[in-house]
Amino acid sequence: MKIAVDAAGGDHYPGNPVEGAILAVNEDSNLSVILLGPKKAVEEALSGHDYPKDRIYVHDSPEVIGMEESPSQAVKSKPRSSIVEGLGMHQKGMADGFVSAGNTGALMAASAFILGRLDGVLRPTIATFFPTVKGAGLMIDAGANLDAKPEMLFQFGAMGNIYARDIMGIEVPRVGLLNVGEEKEKGSETLKKAYHLLEALPGFIGNIEGRDILSGQADVFVCDGITGNILLKFGESIPDALKTLLMGVIKKKQLNAEQAGMVASLLEEAFAPFDYQRVGGVPFLGVNGISMVGHGGSSPVAVKNMILNAVKMAETDINKKIIASVA
Amino acid sequence: MKIAVDAAGGDHYPGNPVEGAILAVNEDSNLSVILLGPKKAVEEALSGHDYPKDRIYVHDSPEVIGMEESPSQAVKSKPRSSIVEGLGMHQKGMADGFVSAGNTGALMAASAFILGRLDGVLRPTIATFFPTVKGAGLMIDAGANLDAKPEMLFQFGAMGNIYARDIMGIEVPRVGLLNVGEEKEKGSETLKKAYHLLEALPGFIGNIEGRDILSGQADVFVCDGITGNILLKFGESIPDALKTLLMGVIKKKQLNAEQAGMVASLLEEAFAPFDYQRVGGVPFLGVNGISMVGHGGSSPVAVKNMILNAVKMAETDINKKIIASVA
Repeated sequence: MKIAVDAAGGDHYPGNPVEGAILAVNEDSNLSVILLGPKKAVEEALSGHDYPKDRIYVHDSPEVIGMEESPSQAVKSKPRSSIVEGLGMHQKGMADGFVSAGNTGALMAASAFILGRLDGVLRPTIATFFPTVKGAGLMIDAGANLDAKPEMLFQFGAMGNIYARDIMGIEVPRVGLLNVGEEKEKGSETLKKAYHLLEALPGFIGNIEGRDILSGQADVFVCDGITGNILLKFGESIPDALKTLLMGVIKKKQLNAEQAGMVASLLEEAFAPFDYQRVGGVPFLGVNGISMVGHGGSSPVAVKNMILNAVKMAETDINKKIIASVA
Repeated sequence: MKIAVDAAGGDHYPGNPVEGAILAVNEDSNLSVILLGPKKAVEEALSGHDYPKDRIYVHDSPEVIGMEESPSQAVKSKPRSSIVEGLGMHQKGMADGFVSAGNTGALMAASAFILGRLDGVLRPTIATFFPTVKGAGLMIDAGANLDAKPEMLFQFGAMGNIYARDIMGIEVPRVGLLNVGEEKEKGSETLKKAYHLLEALPGFIGNIEGRDILSGQADVFVCDGITGNILLKFGESIPDALKTLLMGVIKKKQLNAEQAGMVASLLEEAFAPFDYQRVGGVPFLGVNGISMVGHGGSSPVAVKNMILNAVKMAETDINKKIIASVA
């Protein structure tokens, strides 16, 4: 198994991607990694680390796509970037998957363009983990498809179902359709039609509401990209907002330093599931290949998890199952 | 000023509406209240309380609309319910406004049907308070209009702007359009067109993202009813979810009872802004009258606040300003 890793993407490159790759090959002895990025910088980041030299290669991709660059522009104008070359290698069969913590828009555009769509898939989608009190759920779509038609929502559910089962290890994932009420007849025309289509899916539990997300009433939350994107960013903002509110109370109640420190450390741990920098990347589903994207701030451990998830996707032949499920 | 109050709606009727009415007339010496509900039950709830007898009337509305009843069905089949009779009194000029903690759907249907729309308003809307670290914002629409066209989103912004200014007391409310990115060209076709229309609004600050809600980057959050409803219920679920996560950590760290108690009381206070039972109701905007709806679990203080907000809406002649703003 050989995974191409973007060593020129994210907020902490090449350091974090390089360290994540080393962690991954040390954990999986059958794994090789190709690190793509400006050669000199990547090799410098590697030097001094102890790693199996025969399982980590460096490929020189001198062009760097910035985190804020316009996606389609960047992909077109930088053919020698790590994103374009890494996905190209994967498309040609020189790697079994591609992972990056870089510019999500550019990754999405390049993945769809270079890898193409899977047979029968209307639109590739991006899924995201969402913390719940029971662990993590999968929200799909998380921002790729803003105007989702009923058939697309069905396919998001079908693809999310397979990912939750095969990669997240949930035996029979509960798939819920995000809506304004539980009853079948609730919601817009689009949501009503999507409900009808989703009924064919094993594990479909019907409509779920906003209150059912954090409480983990489903494993897969199906929604359009506007709802998913707004909820994703809202979720990311919870820890800071709650810390601000709690700090206000701590000040008002004049807690001593020891008490305040204890509360802060409790909070830190309770909010750990909301730390998107530790999550091991999320997949583009529906593309003809394996392409994972991580948070820009991904830690080395997050990059490692992303690489190992890409391996799992390749090993379980997830795309064959997706083609069958949307047929 | 005379407000009609539903004494047969909510989870704690007639007790809480009756107590809320008494608190309101005691606070505002120019205020009279008409309590609508099954006469005997309402009078029993009043007895024993000390209140100005010449400013609280009981009107017998023997039919009760349950919290789970199908809205349009209930409104049609129960002409002698407190909701239908209270709104009818207001429409006839026998009361200056109507407030209820009852069945939201029934209230919405009856308000639109009995009061009608204001001139120029495309669709009446329901707004909701949303807690932020800076106080409360106004989310509009909160579930009344699932498929919102650009012109409707503009009107939600215009109406929310006036409510935030005149009732919430924010001098120049910052109006933001909920979207997937900040840039003007982001989002669906509907959102792009809405952005263009909203630019005419004083205080429009452009697109805001999911992360800008809790942090209070705007005072008025404009969105369609699906997004608003999902976010509203998501927000309501935050305290319980966070308590569950924190209690898990407290158990793991084996805190003693005193420490755990202190953390619990801090949390309680920090989460107070999320307590929707204490919020003083939210308005239907765009109807030709004043109609406020409260959370089913509204406390007496919440009912009081709802009544006083209705008074404020009548006094500031909010509907005239709305007609001017959407023209």
